[in-house]
Amino acid sequence: MISPDLASHTAALLDCEDTLYKQVALRISELIEHGTLRPGERVPSVRRCSEQQNVSIATVMQAYRLLENRGIIEGRPQSGYYVRAQRWLAPPEPGMSKPTPRAVEVQVSELVMQIVKASRDPSLLRLGATLPSPELFPIKELHRAMSSVGRRHPLAANSYDPPPGNLALRTQVARRAMEAGCTLAPDDIITTIGVTEALNLCLRAVAKPGDVIGIESPAFFGVLQIIESLGMRVCEIPTFPREGVCLDELAERIKCCRIKACVFTLNYSNPLGYCMPDAKKRQLVKVLSERKIPLIEDDLYGNLSFGPVRPKAAKAYDEDGWVMLCDSFTKTLSPGYRVGWVAPGRFKAQIEFLKFVTTAASPSLPQMAIAEFLQNGGFDHHLRRIRRLYSQQMQCMSAAVSRYFPPGTKATRPEGGMCLWVELPPQVNALTVFHQAMAAKISTAPGPIFSAKQKFANFIRLNFGNPWTERIENAVRDLGRIVHRLADGQQR
Amino acid sequence: MISPDLASHTAALLDCEDTLYKQVALRISELIEHGTLRPGERVPSVRRCSEQQNVSIATVMQAYRLLENRGIIEGRPQSGYYVRAQRWLAPPEPGMSKPTPRAVEVQVSELVMQIVKASRDPSLLRLGATLPSPELFPIKELHRAMSSVGRRHPLAANSYDPPPGNLALRTQVARRAMEAGCTLAPDDIITTIGVTEALNLCLRAVAKPGDVIGIESPAFFGVLQIIESLGMRVCEIPTFPREGVCLDELAERIKCCRIKACVFTLNYSNPLGYCMPDAKKRQLVKVLSERKIPLIEDDLYGNLSFGPVRPKAAKAYDEDGWVMLCDSFTKTLSPGYRVGWVAPGRFKAQIEFLKFVTTAASPSLPQMAIAEFLQNGGFDHHLRRIRRLYSQQMQCMSAAVSRYFPPGTKATRPEGGMCLWVELPPQVNALTVFHQAMAAKISTAPGPIFSAKQKFANFIRLNFGNPWTERIENAVRDLGRIVHRLADGQQR
Repeated sequence: MISPDLASHTAALLDCEDTLYKQVALRISELIEHGTLRPGERVPSVRRCSEQQNVSIATVMQAYRLLENRGIIEGRPQSGYYVRAQRWLAPPEPGMSKPTPRAVEVQVSELVMQIVKASRDPSLLRLGATLPSPELFPIKELHRAMSSVGRRHPLAANSYDPPPGNLALRTQVARRAMEAGCTLAPDDIITTIGVTEALNLCLRAVAKPGDVIGIESPAFFGVLQIIESLGMRVCEIPTFPREGVCLDELAERIKCCRIKACVFTLNYSNPLGYCMPDAKKRQLVKVLSERKIPLIEDDLYGNLSFGPVRPKAAKAYDEDGWVMLCDSFTKTLSPGYRVGWVAPGRFKAQIEFLKFVTTAASPSLPQMAIAEFLQNGGFDHHLRRIRRLYSQQMQCMSAAVSRYFPPGTKATRPEGGMCLWVELPPQVNALTVFHQAMAAKISTAPGPIFSAKQKFANFIRLNFGNPWTERIENAVRDLGRIVHRLADGQQR
Repeated sequence: MISPDLASHTAALLDCEDTLYKQVALRISELIEHGTLRPGERVPSVRRCSEQQNVSIATVMQAYRLLENRGIIEGRPQSGYYVRAQRWLAPPEPGMSKPTPRAVEVQVSELVMQIVKASRDPSLLRLGATLPSPELFPIKELHRAMSSVGRRHPLAANSYDPPPGNLALRTQVARRAMEAGCTLAPDDIITTIGVTEALNLCLRAVAKPGDVIGIESPAFFGVLQIIESLGMRVCEIPTFPREGVCLDELAERIKCCRIKACVFTLNYSNPLGYCMPDAKKRQLVKVLSERKIPLIEDDLYGNLSFGPVRPKAAKAYDEDGWVMLCDSFTKTLSPGYRVGWVAPGRFKAQIEFLKFVTTAASPSLPQMAIAEFLQNGGFDHHLRRIRRLYSQQMQCMSAAVSRYFPPGTKATRPEGGMCLWVELPPQVNALTVFHQAMAAKISTAPGPIFSAKQKFANFIRLNFGNPWTERIENAVRDLGRIVHRLADGQQR
């Protein structure tokens, strides 16, 4: 089935600047749309296409990556590119968010804690959390790395390793940062307790209580909670569901709201799942750096692209050290190890001090184990596997929402990460959905927890981190029924 | 050798309230002082003494514990009590501290960071840090526990374990808290990244920037740094080197300085090494609870008593939940595991929230490994061993200071922990000592880092956490020479 979605992709390609590789991509896309190339079939090899179209290999590579990013073809290791086997009817997309254009206090933590605690019940089918299924982590390999490194370096494993933290890990992180376009030395990096500690340290380093922090809208509730706990305020920036924060609006609000720093997740943001185009990232860094406004970049999902190549980090365009890049292995390797890091640019001394006084040091062994795992090369293989799986799971979730939710439902089209942001018909209250779904043993993340003043009343976030099963399919169906009833004005 | 120190101990016993067990202790102490019982000899068994003196078994036990706490006799497992083999000439003790009687901003973090960073050079003989020698930790046993628990529970080891944290660990901590006189349920406890995170969370839960925190004088520089980083102020309370903060002065300053909360280390404080008597702890808790002032109790060294029984925590006297007890396994089991905890009394909800937003969760595996180690019963055996060792190391350090430092030097007589607080002749500057000692490859902790305004110019803290060696003996001798020269007014 070729969906209207693909046609709109093709149309969107036409809108692109008229560069050579986009023309190539357009031609391939049309071949697929017209059925010349069918789902599951191999597209011409890069070399063949280069000859056919009389363009360079590099141009074809660029074209294929674009098509892959748009979900039209997929790369398979050692095999080439294929027309994506499954096309689905995606729901229409929500529009740009329109938050209040001023600085506000954050008042959402209490609601978040209620939702988060209620959602921990192990009997629930958890569509509300962004925790991937355990089978998507290399548990055995990590345990082996940990046992081995603990046996070989018993003193180091037991010793206090003060900030900047474990050198072997920092070395591996610096090497891998090249994939995100960043040139980092091990000494540019400080290890942390997950990305949560990194974000806390960054905010404390650059802002004080009362200061205004620019954030996406909707924004990850964890970021809202951190800001609320630090007594800072936020200015929520209008955000497009595909390209991220609107730079014009941002520039405007910087002036009128005296934004002190920004926290953005530019690659597969939570909950929108957008990936800001590289050129726009460069522009964003320029806008902020010129005004000496630090950008705290949360790249937690950056490695979870659906295509084979991860996008760049904004840090890649950071010339003057205003970008503080935060990341962790929580979503890719192990939530339980709590190993994160920050590359804080010009704020290194402050972050090192704050890390020292906040948790003194991170546990040594989990850092050593992850360094060992990264060094032995299992990470890329693992990433390839989960990228494919998450991509498929996203399609299943999007198709299920399309199938089971009432007309008027909209949903994002993430190109990575593990969550779908769903706009329900305007009369449906997400908190009512939450409670009714809990009664049916399904957790959801209601829209209000993603904004400072509990807006997004008719939005929910769904997690597609788990391999698709009949149980999940049924849960989305049940959720759809709940939404249907509420849309029809029937309260249970 | 029976030292003047023992005679003064005997005299001090005479000053005690005239209770029965103290009379018994006095009689035994006199037998030792007069040489009837000699160093290394067994004192009468508890039963025998009970018959001889015609008092109850419980009274004799109390008397022996008193003598043990005073360092006059020592218990040996399954064998009875012995006159302490080594008596030494301890230097005289410093007097009560006299800090400025008002609230002040903390301005010491930068100096602390300079000292701490300089002191990390691995070629140094580290007398400045309170890090025990690695051989005093059960490294192999812990690694075995960790490998085993990771193999048996791979999912749990990799999973995110949100606050309050690992249940098995909290259960073990609650059981062990009975030793400190505390009745805690697992649900009263929240696990943290060492005691550092626990102190941060407690301070943030009960005070805000600008608020005044009551602290000891001198106080651990880590506490000063945390307070400075949070933008709070301190009121330093006059502190006796044997019994801790002066309660009269505390009551006075609560009134005039509007103290919002207190952070005290009542058992073997760092750097003084004092242990507040239990009755005084009870009184302290009463004074603070009546005024609804939270007591943040840092019990990091509570298990490192030189006698076989650890002292009570102030938390044992907490009836209304105003005491927030913080502890970790950093000084007893493993600095590298970073496993700490807090029993926050009435502030549980706030601490749980702050833990969630600050580091989200603690790493699972180190918590599980320590729970496993605690459950399998190796901890008590391990504690008995290190208590004996630290006691001996303290005596060696005290004797060496007495031997090598110039007249006019004073030193504390800690009954636990791992540091000696040394008052140098008034003309000697501790920072000069620090720099000259660093040139001789010896680290020390200079007095100024232990107060908000860098007082204690002629004090240094020495760590006796390492088994005594000729190298350490020589280092103290070299240090003594430096101090001698400075006391004589000769700058190198």
